[in-house]
Amino acid sequence: MAASAVALGLIATPVLAQDARTIRAAEQVRDQALKGNIALDYVTQITTRFGPRPAGSRAEQDASAWAADYMRAHGFQNVRIETFPLIGWERGEESAEILGARPQKLVAAALGHSIATPAGGIEADIVFFDGLDALMAAPAGSLTGKIAMVDGGQMVRMQDGSGYGPLSRLRSQGPTEAAKRGAVAFVMRSAGSDEHRMPHTGTTRYVDGKVPLPSFALSAPDADQIARLVGMGETVRLRLKSTAHTYETVSQNVIGDIVGASRPDEIIVLGSHMDSWDLGTGAIDDAAGGAITLAAAKLIAEQGRPARTVRVVLYGSEEVAQPTDHGNGGGAYVRNIGAGVEKHVIAGESDFGADRVYALGLPPGSQGTDFARIAERVLRPLGILPGEAELFGGVDIGPLARAGVPVFGLRQDGTRYFDLHHTADDTLDKIDPAQMTQNVAAWAALVRLIADSDVDFRAARAAQEAKR
Amino acid sequence: MAASAVALGLIATPVLAQDARTIRAAEQVRDQALKGNIALDYVTQITTRFGPRPAGSRAEQDASAWAADYMRAHGFQNVRIETFPLIGWERGEESAEILGARPQKLVAAALGHSIATPAGGIEADIVFFDGLDALMAAPAGSLTGKIAMVDGGQMVRMQDGSGYGPLSRLRSQGPTEAAKRGAVAFVMRSAGSDEHRMPHTGTTRYVDGKVPLPSFALSAPDADQIARLVGMGETVRLRLKSTAHTYETVSQNVIGDIVGASRPDEIIVLGSHMDSWDLGTGAIDDAAGGAITLAAAKLIAEQGRPARTVRVVLYGSEEVAQPTDHGNGGGAYVRNIGAGVEKHVIAGESDFGADRVYALGLPPGSQGTDFARIAERVLRPLGILPGEAELFGGVDIGPLARAGVPVFGLRQDGTRYFDLHHTADDTLDKIDPAQMTQNVAAWAALVRLIADSDVDFRAARAAQEAKR
Repeated sequence: MAASAVALGLIATPVLAQDARTIRAAEQVRDQALKGNIALDYVTQITTRFGPRPAGSRAEQDASAWAADYMRAHGFQNVRIETFPLIGWERGEESAEILGARPQKLVAAALGHSIATPAGGIEADIVFFDGLDALMAAPAGSLTGKIAMVDGGQMVRMQDGSGYGPLSRLRSQGPTEAAKRGAVAFVMRSAGSDEHRMPHTGTTRYVDGKVPLPSFALSAPDADQIARLVGMGETVRLRLKSTAHTYETVSQNVIGDIVGASRPDEIIVLGSHMDSWDLGTGAIDDAAGGAITLAAAKLIAEQGRPARTVRVVLYGSEEVAQPTDHGNGGGAYVRNIGAGVEKHVIAGESDFGADRVYALGLPPGSQGTDFARIAERVLRPLGILPGEAELFGGVDIGPLARAGVPVFGLRQDGTRYFDLHHTADDTLDKIDPAQMTQNVAAWAALVRLIADSDVDFRAARAAQEAKR
Repeated sequence: MAASAVALGLIATPVLAQDARTIRAAEQVRDQALKGNIALDYVTQITTRFGPRPAGSRAEQDASAWAADYMRAHGFQNVRIETFPLIGWERGEESAEILGARPQKLVAAALGHSIATPAGGIEADIVFFDGLDALMAAPAGSLTGKIAMVDGGQMVRMQDGSGYGPLSRLRSQGPTEAAKRGAVAFVMRSAGSDEHRMPHTGTTRYVDGKVPLPSFALSAPDADQIARLVGMGETVRLRLKSTAHTYETVSQNVIGDIVGASRPDEIIVLGSHMDSWDLGTGAIDDAAGGAITLAAAKLIAEQGRPARTVRVVLYGSEEVAQPTDHGNGGGAYVRNIGAGVEKHVIAGESDFGADRVYALGLPPGSQGTDFARIAERVLRPLGILPGEAELFGGVDIGPLARAGVPVFGLRQDGTRYFDLHHTADDTLDKIDPAQMTQNVAAWAALVRLIADSDVDFRAARAAQEAKR
């Protein structure tokens, strides 16, 4: 198998005998994954032994060292840890409450990299906005001494997670826009689709090297409560406290290879991220992604070395990525490999939980090719349909994509992802082992096909671009 | 209508014309309830304006005063507030964490009336037990200096809430049993059916005037995490902190009547409790019960005064009832009425959330009577079936039942009740208005039938007892 890298060509040709063998191998590794794989073991161990793994924390470092050992124990080669500097962030203690004659405690969480409040907290009346546009329409100075409270609405549950974008923008830009208008703090309804007392944290944007205001997410029921009080004509005065602080540290990427038998310099990069938010244990975001890609690569190796090299990267510090691609593992990886990026034939990441894959996204130019048809045939028994072209990747492989590496996606059902994302509720019990296993089977089968083919996804993309 | 209290007799007789009018009235008030009622308004206002209403707190007192005004505004008569003394409890600050090389924060909540830890917290290794029986099998002195951690298992979701009993016993008796064996603190898996990071608080038992140990509930995922660490052979060391404290205060019952037109001295008592646990806003436990019974009584009054008096009691301090019936509103009510308890023909309470009623429970001796057949006929269009006899009532009307008052139950679907019960997640959004409305319709129809009948539930019960 390994010695016969095969065509699976971009031009429509009859399926060759070599192709048939490759297809059979992909089907076999797919079915083997369904019989058993290490994904649940990995995700159980890493979430239980290390708990939350914030970027740059001791827990992330220890978990990365443990994961490197885990890769070695499961047959990966050239396992290595590459560190990079990072500004870490610790939540410390925090609280939020409604003051006045009828005080009520609120369930809130500081947004990632939020600055602390003064030790006694911030006490101020809120000004309520029903979205980022409303906040941006407020005149300069109109929030002086006030807390900006923005309710961007509840996310609707969607298979593809759409709806997160606008709320993620509110989280990124809200503190800055509130500060511009004189606010002393920023509070938002969580970017999430659940109705639990679970605030969703997440990073917010630096301006001149720091987040401009103490910034918090409220759980959806708490945001509802404030909206109702405002609707009843009450003046809502809050006290917000946070001892959050930053510190200098390092994070790291853990890298391991299944070295290709005949074309080892052609690298397929699979990955996910090691860090998690601090509130949960990062089971679905994103120990699951590591579990799925590690389990798939191990199954491929056990079946027989592929022609190309299959690399798994457990990226450090995905959650706190700023637009510069500094301080996150994906950016560090691309800087470290330098010109070696040219050897990367394709990259994929698994970072959308552990629920089932419903669609395949190949790089532009690959749609309708023999390779695509064969991949679709191998994935169809898993309930996976052809999907639109994959263009950008996520935070981990975005830097690779921007450096010219084609990316693929095995798109997961995100219907319940934003119920859990960035909350204390992101714990092991939320993973459905059967659905995670379907992911492993899909990754193993697709990567087997890619790794034993000579398909040039860059050339295919370039050919398509030339046609336009 | 009001002047003609009718037979609905206990002996099987043909339905009289009078009965037919009573049945029509019950059907009309049932259907009127489905068209509109005040339940959602009441529950929205009380949970939003006052938030959590712990027994004896300022919030409970203020909410009771507001509820009295609400009753007056909606046509209740003789509205009054009766206070009684109470030892209140405040949670203060609390935290729980796993110590050691790989520290992890846990989501925990002190059990109600738990004593505080020393200011620096308690640090000790745990001894893990898989239930109350296992704890009770531990030898004397075997827990000296240790934290007893008891995982009594996850509640299975059940329509009737069965499964709560054993875990409620663990919560009541666990601290005492752990203390007897030398433990320095008690930690239990929450008595709940959910898998969220939501600890379920709840009261635990006094011994010699206080809870013997600092006592906590862990959320289910946190209990799972500890069980896994124990299973991996790790020594689990915890730090527990709590500043909980008790204080002297008063609670109160809010009482209002729809005075009967022809037999005002015959009292039907409907009720629910005003207090809630401190973590949530007590929407399903039990603002909903107040909403349902108030809304039903108001609809009956608007339709035309009933023959008998319909009384609604919003009991104070249900959640912290100790076996003595002191310090809870139900006990205070019975002591206050003294011999007047003889005038109480029947009592019912709504304290199991706001989901639909699925079964009717009449007092013993009423099964198979004309009254039962008529009640079943009126309730059947709401999807309510005949159920077993109601024997004991809950905490609020238990003291009335023990004083000889027959009790009835409109049994609610509790399938999701213990997902939310005693957690921060007990908030308004968890109420399904359509299901709550079905409750209002059931209460209005059944109470209309009872209030316009002369059925003697005590005599029926006595007759059945004499037969045995």
